[in-house]
Amino acid sequence: MSYSPLIGQLISSLKRLPGVGQKSAQRMAFYLLQHDKPGAIQIAQSLAAAIEHVGECSKCRVLTESDICEVCDNPKRKQQLVCVVESPSDVQAFEQSTSYEGRYFVLMGHLSPLDGIGPHEIGLDKLAIQLDSGEVTEVILATNPNVEGEATAHYISEMTKKRNIKTTRIAHGVPIGGELEFVNGSTLSHALLGRSVVSAD
Amino acid sequence: MSYSPLIGQLISSLKRLPGVGQKSAQRMAFYLLQHDKPGAIQIAQSLAAAIEHVGECSKCRVLTESDICEVCDNPKRKQQLVCVVESPSDVQAFEQSTSYEGRYFVLMGHLSPLDGIGPHEIGLDKLAIQLDSGEVTEVILATNPNVEGEATAHYISEMTKKRNIKTTRIAHGVPIGGELEFVNGSTLSHALLGRSVVSAD
Repeated sequence: MSYSPLIGQLISSLKRLPGVGQKSAQRMAFYLLQHDKPGAIQIAQSLAAAIEHVGECSKCRVLTESDICEVCDNPKRKQQLVCVVESPSDVQAFEQSTSYEGRYFVLMGHLSPLDGIGPHEIGLDKLAIQLDSGEVTEVILATNPNVEGEATAHYISEMTKKRNIKTTRIAHGVPIGGELEFVNGSTLSHALLGRSVVSAD
Repeated sequence: MSYSPLIGQLISSLKRLPGVGQKSAQRMAFYLLQHDKPGAIQIAQSLAAAIEHVGECSKCRVLTESDICEVCDNPKRKQQLVCVVESPSDVQAFEQSTSYEGRYFVLMGHLSPLDGIGPHEIGLDKLAIQLDSGEVTEVILATNPNVEGEATAHYISEMTKKRNIKTTRIAHGVPIGGELEFVNGSTLSHALLGRSVVSAD
């Protein structure tokens, strides 16, 4: 016996969620059908609503159902300070734990020429227009500290250098609460190179 | 900044899935919105369809969109042989890995008086009618090998004893492919008590 068709379809569609395989999808499907039908209806409805209405902010490309997102539309945020990140979840991480007062620009990925992802695909032409308009005084590069993220950061820094706009990169080093002996070598090298002066004689 | 309302709703509804917390829900929501909108639509539609049409088999209580499930409706399966399991996923496990030829009865849980789950809630009145009708010749107890499962199995064995119906319990012991030294003590005791004769002089 295989599943009844509708259950089979439900399981195979749940498998499209990231990190969900056959066993988890099966568990989710049976759980919802047995114990949480209202939850299932809620998921179906909120997915449909989000798919229909959520798009990109026309200024920073973050996901939002408005034309312009809350941050870009907020006059209290410094609109001339732009933090460039790879994904909407990075924005969320900054908002949750820092008191950053500027706005963001979300690349929705990173440069990856082999996959056909060039400057246009990550919205750098839109960023260029914003840089050209003269409204941006500092660009903070907060792409991920891996090969693709560094390459993307480097590409953007070339764009800003041409336009004489101040550009900074977030600090990389030993994480707070971490222990030196468990930190990888490359992080430790960064921490050493990026050391700051505590007292000078 | 919090999420835009629709994204927030999507994330909190995804958190209702078993095993999905804030971070996973966030990852799923952003993944679907950024990279797999057709997948999201498919999930929403298959959830809605399953919720509307899937119910319990009127004979064995397994989840199905028909009135009677494939197994109960199959004349090639021995309808007089009934394997009692706790959940639809147990049925799936049996079907996938054994060549069991009988049918099932799904309790959709186990006896748990403290949570208000008595014999009626797990469908034992329906099972009693089937036992009374004389169509059942053997009941195989395949509830989980934990306290609740054992109690449930014991309760059902009392029901069958009264009606003089042959009742068996699936074997518990060392799992195939497992190693003795990593098996817990209670499993090992079961394995020893349930030993079978290989050769006798």
